[in-house]
Amino acid sequence: MKVGFIGLGHMGSAMATNLVKARHEVVVFNRSVENTRPLIELGARAATSIAEACRAEAVITMLADDAAVEQVSTAKDGILASLPKGAIHVSMSTISLALATELASLHGEAGQRFVSAPVFGRPTAAAAAKLFILAAGDPAAIAACQPLFEAMGQKTVPIGTDPPTANVVKLGGNLLIAVVIESLGEIMALADKAGIDRHTFLDALTSTLFTAPLYSLYGEIIADRKFVPAEFAARLGDKDLRLALAAARDLRVPLPLGSLLQDRFLRLLAQGGENLDWSAIGGLAAHDAGGPPPGR
Amino acid sequence: MKVGFIGLGHMGSAMATNLVKARHEVVVFNRSVENTRPLIELGARAATSIAEACRAEAVITMLADDAAVEQVSTAKDGILASLPKGAIHVSMSTISLALATELASLHGEAGQRFVSAPVFGRPTAAAAAKLFILAAGDPAAIAACQPLFEAMGQKTVPIGTDPPTANVVKLGGNLLIAVVIESLGEIMALADKAGIDRHTFLDALTSTLFTAPLYSLYGEIIADRKFVPAEFAARLGDKDLRLALAAARDLRVPLPLGSLLQDRFLRLLAQGGENLDWSAIGGLAAHDAGGPPPGR
Amino acid sequence: MKVGFIGLGHMGSAMATNLVKARHEVVVFNRSVENTRPLIELGARAATSIAEACRAEAVITMLADDAAVEQVSTAKDGILASLPKGAIHVSMSTISLALATELASLHGEAGQRFVSAPVFGRPTAAAAAKLFILAAGDPAAIAACQPLFEAMGQKTVPIGTDPPTANVVKLGGNLLIAVVIESLGEIMALADKAGIDRHTFLDALTSTLFTAPLYSLYGEIIADRKFVPAEFAARLGDKDLRLALAAARDLRVPLPLGSLLQDRFLRLLAQGGENLDWSAIGGLAAHDAGGPPPGR
Amino acid sequence: MKVGFIGLGHMGSAMATNLVKARHEVVVFNRSVENTRPLIELGARAATSIAEACRAEAVITMLADDAAVEQVSTAKDGILASLPKGAIHVSMSTISLALATELASLHGEAGQRFVSAPVFGRPTAAAAAKLFILAAGDPAAIAACQPLFEAMGQKTVPIGTDPPTANVVKLGGNLLIAVVIESLGEIMALADKAGIDRHTFLDALTSTLFTAPLYSLYGEIIADRKFVPAEFAARLGDKDLRLALAAARDLRVPLPLGSLLQDRFLRLLAQGGENLDWSAIGGLAAHDAGGPPPGR
Repeated sequence: MKVGFIGLGHMGSAMATNLVKARHEVVVFNRSVENTRPLIELGARAATSIAEACRAEAVITMLADDAAVEQVSTAKDGILASLPKGAIHVSMSTISLALATELASLHGEAGQRFVSAPVFGRPTAAAAAKLFILAAGDPAAIAACQPLFEAMGQKTVPIGTDPPTANVVKLGGNLLIAVVIESLGEIMALADKAGIDRHTFLDALTSTLFTAPLYSLYGEIIADRKFVPAEFAARLGDKDLRLALAAARDLRVPLPLGSLLQDRFLRLLAQGGENLDWSAIGGLAAHDAGGPPPGR
Repeated sequence: MKVGFIGLGHMGSAMATNLVKARHEVVVFNRSVENTRPLIELGARAATSIAEACRAEAVITMLADDAAVEQVSTAKDGILASLPKGAIHVSMSTISLALATELASLHGEAGQRFVSAPVFGRPTAAAAAKLFILAAGDPAAIAACQPLFEAMGQKTVPIGTDPPTANVVKLGGNLLIAVVIESLGEIMALADKAGIDRHTFLDALTSTLFTAPLYSLYGEIIADRKFVPAEFAARLGDKDLRLALAAARDLRVPLPLGSLLQDRFLRLLAQGGENLDWSAIGGLAAHDAGGPPPGR
Repeated sequence: MKVGFIGLGHMGSAMATNLVKARHEVVVFNRSVENTRPLIELGARAATSIAEACRAEAVITMLADDAAVEQVSTAKDGILASLPKGAIHVSMSTISLALATELASLHGEAGQRFVSAPVFGRPTAAAAAKLFILAAGDPAAIAACQPLFEAMGQKTVPIGTDPPTANVVKLGGNLLIAVVIESLGEIMALADKAGIDRHTFLDALTSTLFTAPLYSLYGEIIADRKFVPAEFAARLGDKDLRLALAAARDLRVPLPLGSLLQDRFLRLLAQGGENLDWSAIGGLAAHDAGGPPPGR
Repeated sequence: MKVGFIGLGHMGSAMATNLVKARHEVVVFNRSVENTRPLIELGARAATSIAEACRAEAVITMLADDAAVEQVSTAKDGILASLPKGAIHVSMSTISLALATELASLHGEAGQRFVSAPVFGRPTAAAAAKLFILAAGDPAAIAACQPLFEAMGQKTVPIGTDPPTANVVKLGGNLLIAVVIESLGEIMALADKAGIDRHTFLDALTSTLFTAPLYSLYGEIIADRKFVPAEFAARLGDKDLRLALAAARDLRVPLPLGSLLQDRFLRLLAQGGENLDWSAIGGLAAHDAGGPPPGR
């Protein structure tokens, strides 16, 4: 399938690589040209403009934030101006409910199709083609993208026909992961002061009720207080949480756990932890209980 | 193995039944005699006093709260006074860190052994012999109890040699479950107001990252707002949470999630929900977002 | 002094009235002409455009929100385009730290002066010329405005030379008032369930340590559960709180009390209370303790 | 008036001194005899037993905690056993609602009278006879104590006829003060990072809306980060807060502000601040925003 790919950060590079390996015809575009090289060596083609990346059946965006996605979409020579009628913009980065809603509307007016397809998974999962892809939009458009999704993920979960709903699931899921991190942090601070080995404690939880792999993954990080290197930096975790809370505010849904987590992230960032892994919020409870701050 | 069993509530009856079925020689004692009948029909023997239930290699307590366990343990003709030297008191109910510490000490002085073995699992898991048993104490004593544990549970997790550590794991684990309930409640309130079907939303989470069965179990209850009948009543959830927070206070460990949950439980109880399932705290977020209160 | 006045809501009308009474030469402008009539009868002149209101030594804005202030300031024929060099824009409404910073910069570039002068006080205080005015900006400009401030307020508090600092004090002060409301609400819910008359309880506090009038003012409202009519509507309180939290987020200052209050406001709005007085958040604690919801 | 006085800590010594100065006939009793000396020099008489201090029209208790008050009251030769029929036990320390309820009942059965009269005020206020005394119990008994109260306080506030109600007011008031401390701490952390001088900021608040002296008192301490010496140590503030929360739990009143404060105190104690003034919780917000921890 002929597909444009815009945004070659940690996640995007890994995903585009898997598309090339699956023998899709991939045209990549990135603000900094340097990131395109490894992909070109693998067989991708480099576009010199967004418009060039849009000469395809579909164009995928995997960018840092709302501002970047809005810019490449609505710029004079951006996706909306360049994508052929009937072609599909597949938005895979974590963006706000508001922007997803706006893009769905603009692409509809332009006669293009818009699929919202954010993902669960860190860069290692992206590299292993193990992402979970949450897809919402026109079912025919999602079906058309399925060969792409299969190259990048282990599973595609259909959410509905209204694109922004996938973003709500993504933002809600991220909040839920952050809650897991915070709860493990608190409970391990308690175990620690009660004289229980943190790993023994964690194993007792993960071998019984808390069998989802993310409990082991984050539990080990917190037990070892090993918040570097950051696979997903705290400042990005904070950004995603803000998007969840902004959606909740607009919809008038109080989220006390979300508020608590926002204060945790703000504190972590204010105290110098912005480049630690976002799981470092799980180290604050131990600090509050008299232990060292996360990152030391 | 010859074993006394004190406390035949929902959990205790199911556990004692499985001991009888596994052909252990079980002597049951319960304040209200009525609960002993089905067990006697199965082949258990009824004791008319705690002392009589203590004429065994081990005596198991599975009672409602600290007060009950303390009473049967320290009464004039209680376990401490009656259990043979070298025999084992296996405390399986959810009790405080403070009481577990005290009992470990008193049994030691009396030349008896004390194993703390609280469980993860609701009555249905107890009936199916699918409990997770968290065991702490003298390894030889735990090994001696293993045939009993195998009859009641699907897995025994050794925590350490100091009995109260098992109680910390139990209390911490319960807090973690309550956090899962609250987080699902918040996030589903958000999905609901965003126009996403609650079950679709839940499936998207449980089929990807949140694969531990308790996410499905409690997620379904919250999605269906079906908080009756109560398998584990809110007032019992509140009691367990208090024990976790009391341990945290004594050890000087701030648990902001625990504090938030305590306010949720207090509110649920104050608003008439004490006989709802404890997962009804997961219905408060939807009420705060403009929906009906849990239980209506 | 010749002064333009833009924005004749509850607060603005009362403030402009006091300027006219103090014999200033007042030119009023309001989107809806109807609100200008009572002032014209008193002796004010009505402008038919913002530009006309800007033919003065100073122009005061007292508008609903950031959007309105930004619009009248930056529109094609707005204040920035119309105000004479050296004249003063006195921004008295509650606006964001970000907008105050931007306006200070734009007016500087345009050779105009900008004084940030938000106020403490509800409409009754505005009518009685009892406002507290928090003034920040060029000291000479503040001094020039002093005759206006004296006509509208009981006291002018100089905050500093950087205009946005006054907005921080205003937003911080509002947050502090909301905390007083919430704390009175919680504590009176406790007194009520302990069988103490709410007024007796309140008097015991306000006649001893909590002598600031706002404790009596809001305490009486909460004790009487009388949240209508709204002198300051909940949706406006929510708006101001958001501005405080936005400033805190940008400056990376976790405000746990602010987060808790935001959830209170969101809940009040979601449950239909947007036109209640903002002190209705002080009725939520009683509801959580088993009493009626605020507004019933 | 002939009065016994039990408990000569910082508060008790100052209060007993004022009773002696007002020419009451004071018999003092303290566990450690050393504290009685200055009072004996002033003219008090030292009792060698609780019983001896009870040979009076009234006996005042001003002790560290529930355990101490319960012990001197219910011991074999304690107040209940020794106080003449019709004489009055005036309980002035901060005790739990539960203990006040129990003592009221026991004294009633013993034919004695019980007045609950906790106070607002730190040791400096006690020394200056400026305490606020919250009195509840039989009106005739309160009237009989009025000469004592006048010697120790600036005002007696009658709360009701049921003694424990005074304790609820005391505990609620203390919680309210702690909220003031926390709110000032948060808001000054914000002002500080916004580049506003903390004292200027504080003055803007205390000279306008927040005129109660406790805002200035605690605001100055927080602005100066001067948490030593402790007039009221953090561990005592924590103890009082626990009593408030215990009463709230028993009455089923969720107090989210109280929960937040409890976590603040636990953290302060866990991080080594137990001998700082309790206002040091007001230094945590600045630390969370990237500043130094309180006490450094």
